[in-house]
Amino acid sequence: MTKSALQIARAAYQPKLPKALKGAVKVKEGEPTQSVADQEAIKELFPNTYGMPLIQFVEGEAVSFPAINVGVILSGGQAPGGHNVISGLFDGIKALNKDSKLYGFILGPGGLVDHNYMELTADIIDEYRNTGGFDIIGSGRTKLEKVEQFEKGYEIIQELGIKALVIIGGDDSNTNACVLAEYYAAKNYGVQVIGCPKTIDGDLKNEMIETSFGFDTACKTYSEVIGNIQRDCNSARKYWHFIKLMGRSASHIALECALQVQPNVCIISEEVEAKDMSLDDVVTYIAQAVADRAAAGNNFGTVLIPEGLVEFIPAMKRLIAELNDFLAANSEEFAQIKKSAQRDYIIRKLSPENSAIYASLPEGVARQLTLDRDPHGNVQVSLIETEKLLSEMVGKKLAQWKEEGKYVGKFAAQHHFFGYEGRCAAPSNFDADYCYSLGYTASLLIANGKTGYMSSVRNTTAPAEEWIAGGVPITMMMNMERRHGEMKPVIQKALVRLDGAPFKAFAANREMWAKETAYVYPGPIQYFGPTEVCDQPTKTLQLEQAK
Amino acid sequence: MTKSALQIARAAYQPKLPKALKGAVKVKEGEPTQSVADQEAIKELFPNTYGMPLIQFVEGEAVSFPAINVGVILSGGQAPGGHNVISGLFDGIKALNKDSKLYGFILGPGGLVDHNYMELTADIIDEYRNTGGFDIIGSGRTKLEKVEQFEKGYEIIQELGIKALVIIGGDDSNTNACVLAEYYAAKNYGVQVIGCPKTIDGDLKNEMIETSFGFDTACKTYSEVIGNIQRDCNSARKYWHFIKLMGRSASHIALECALQVQPNVCIISEEVEAKDMSLDDVVTYIAQAVADRAAAGNNFGTVLIPEGLVEFIPAMKRLIAELNDFLAANSEEFAQIKKSAQRDYIIRKLSPENSAIYASLPEGVARQLTLDRDPHGNVQVSLIETEKLLSEMVGKKLAQWKEEGKYVGKFAAQHHFFGYEGRCAAPSNFDADYCYSLGYTASLLIANGKTGYMSSVRNTTAPAEEWIAGGVPITMMMNMERRHGEMKPVIQKALVRLDGAPFKAFAANREMWAKETAYVYPGPIQYFGPTEVCDQPTKTLQLEQAK
Repeated sequence: MTKSALQIARAAYQPKLPKALKGAVKVKEGEPTQSVADQEAIKELFPNTYGMPLIQFVEGEAVSFPAINVGVILSGGQAPGGHNVISGLFDGIKALNKDSKLYGFILGPGGLVDHNYMELTADIIDEYRNTGGFDIIGSGRTKLEKVEQFEKGYEIIQELGIKALVIIGGDDSNTNACVLAEYYAAKNYGVQVIGCPKTIDGDLKNEMIETSFGFDTACKTYSEVIGNIQRDCNSARKYWHFIKLMGRSASHIALECALQVQPNVCIISEEVEAKDMSLDDVVTYIAQAVADRAAAGNNFGTVLIPEGLVEFIPAMKRLIAELNDFLAANSEEFAQIKKSAQRDYIIRKLSPENSAIYASLPEGVARQLTLDRDPHGNVQVSLIETEKLLSEMVGKKLAQWKEEGKYVGKFAAQHHFFGYEGRCAAPSNFDADYCYSLGYTASLLIANGKTGYMSSVRNTTAPAEEWIAGGVPITMMMNMERRHGEMKPVIQKALVRLDGAPFKAFAANREMWAKETAYVYPGPIQYFGPTEVCDQPTKTLQLEQAK
Repeated sequence: MTKSALQIARAAYQPKLPKALKGAVKVKEGEPTQSVADQEAIKELFPNTYGMPLIQFVEGEAVSFPAINVGVILSGGQAPGGHNVISGLFDGIKALNKDSKLYGFILGPGGLVDHNYMELTADIIDEYRNTGGFDIIGSGRTKLEKVEQFEKGYEIIQELGIKALVIIGGDDSNTNACVLAEYYAAKNYGVQVIGCPKTIDGDLKNEMIETSFGFDTACKTYSEVIGNIQRDCNSARKYWHFIKLMGRSASHIALECALQVQPNVCIISEEVEAKDMSLDDVVTYIAQAVADRAAAGNNFGTVLIPEGLVEFIPAMKRLIAELNDFLAANSEEFAQIKKSAQRDYIIRKLSPENSAIYASLPEGVARQLTLDRDPHGNVQVSLIETEKLLSEMVGKKLAQWKEEGKYVGKFAAQHHFFGYEGRCAAPSNFDADYCYSLGYTASLLIANGKTGYMSSVRNTTAPAEEWIAGGVPITMMMNMERRHGEMKPVIQKALVRLDGAPFKAFAANREMWAKETAYVYPGPIQYFGPTEVCDQPTKTLQLEQAK
């Protein structure tokens, strides 16, 4: 395998651990916990894993542990640092007893159900330390939800003598980890299940989980290229760059990147929803920023757009819902309509409110909304090129304003979408350390007989030495939500809080950023060099943790 | 101005200079030179600047120089390191005499003609050391070609007491720098003109100019994100990523990135042209790679595509030429055709060969070829989304092969275009050192009364200490070429040579890369850390210079 010079040099990096984890530890238990909401319902669903105490690991005396076999699963989309969770877990169980073994289930939760696994030996682990990607065992999107899956998994668990499973995933995967923990506990199978908080989207966080891993590296990678584009933009002075950023649900990535690069405009989906803004409101907001800059002679700028925006615009949500229902009910008739007549047909058939919005959409987007449907018959919102949709509508609005004498300037747009560029970047020092610590902590939760816990590493804006490692009962983060028409216990998704410090810092500065050219150029992630360059957590974390 | 931690730390970097430039220097003259071709014609056009000797700077004795005023111009597209050329030039003329002054002409060559300038003082220079972008004075695409422009420029040159102009640009800008040098020499104006070789495209190089600046940083930035995508691709195992890379003329960027990341497929325009490949040939070649990998269970991969590909496909070139002529002659008639009937109209009107190719194109591309035209009435080839064109056609071919039982697999594509992401990245150590040395060398060419020279720094695969600094007569790089119907003296553009070491290294490995998953993950540019990580030149340069 050919390796780059950086891959070779980076392999030697020894991730930093919290001081308490460097030697023998003991468990310090906190008070019993409650779920964030719907306590009675959650308690009833999780009789064996509800109400457990918070746990912190503190220095203790050396105890001898028996060898244990552990299974690990990567679930869902890639996030930088997954390999370090696994190497931390590996080093942790080996430190407990050198005869411990780690099994990786291949291509996600499906590997457990299908008995598709490999032993992760030291040779393999060493190949993947401090690298990006999930390619060590692959990941997958199979959801562990059904008793048959749990039982199929239990078969291989017994066969391999596995004492505990570590599931590395986002909010849904951790919810399912807890359901599995509860099931095995109720059955007295003696199998522990531990979760680890992963997602570049940054929407799995709460009081006890300060951040999900991968968010740091992904945002820094996006900020690097956005910064480069801004420098280009400020040199060429002739384009508006519309930059869409991955992240379906929450706008944490867009917000963090905005705090890092200080763009002219950044749209935050949660704000759009809270203010009940229409698509035209969003377009007008951007067009106004373009017009104001043009008045000052600056016909260039940058706009950051969260991938999930369209679904947060209440009026668009209603349009999409009606389209889904209408096309499901009239698919045969619609299939008979000539392509060139489809647009008018839809406009005629929709309710007046939705019809007007549909008619206002650029042709390509309108077509996309009626053509590309997922297996459930729903519009595939992720296929909408929101960055082009917005720039096209902004262009139209500006042309109209020009006619009305309200705008003088030139408007030309470039488009970008960043997602795959950052999900598998080599983890930053922060993510390398954080992930390794999460994995190491998971090994200690296992050693101490815990199940239904999420590995937790806190105080993460301090140097790694001072980080606090422990476990949080997953039930503590849950509430009841309607999913596919049913009330389900789920971990609350953390959306951008409009009263939170990161959004407030953004809101306090955005008018200045819109008018002036206040671009910051973060540059690429540095792994060697001054600590203020290499070891800083995200702006989001710094602002949230500043007390 | 808010700065990132990296911006602050990087400002302190002192670029490395060749040993010979560290103290006083003297000129060592070589033999008189000849142009690469068309010697008689070039000699006649450049009587004052033809046949001058190569120059090398070697250690000499300290001499006192009078203060000089110098003007500097950034011409054309941004390339990482432009600010370092300017800071090297600044430090160079200040080292000659601390009362020397540097003037920057604003927004490119137009600044000279329009008398738009600023003095670049130490305070300003210090703000821009080791940064990307051309924002210190901006750039522009005005071509200096006419006597009136030369004379307008001379007015401000006299007013500011400027002794020499340094023009930082690509092949065309350097050609024009030489024309200007010749004009001022013929007129005995006593104004020297020096060129510096800039372009991320890498197509300004020859025996004496080993590389143009910016190529190193831009390719490393693209390789970083391509590597990240490859890691994602290899983890998710479900997409083919079609990645288009900036660079209209030559495929040096695609080739260098391929050498760095080892993708499954990389198309080299020069090879497509040399082999007279059709669009269908290119599509078949990619589809075959997809099918072969699918047969081995790998329904994922990466394809690198040079931006200029379409113009290198002989059949596409002929189609575009006929379209340009036809639409210019029939624009009124065409404007009357209903949008939905335009495609059929064009198919009916073109010659049989071109009609067949046009009919084979996806609808969006076909429409683009007839709709978006530049001010001269030509197709804007740069607007063609070649990455989508190819993936769509590959998808169709695979569907056909599936029906014929020749292909079993799943094909889903993602698309990327990287250009603006790298043109203004902060220069790598290589580009920071190389550019600074180029600028410093320019100051010495000026001090020694040279004009019509390009600043040259060679032996660039050795440590910077051992680099060789000097000057190359620009006429030496020229030949006569037909441009807009007229024979003109121009610097030969360096395309990818199919008999060159970089292409041969690629060709020797590509079959293996296509079949196996041999991805390399270069990671982000590192500015601090081990020299094998931070200070390596491009693979292209290493292969070309290996003797």
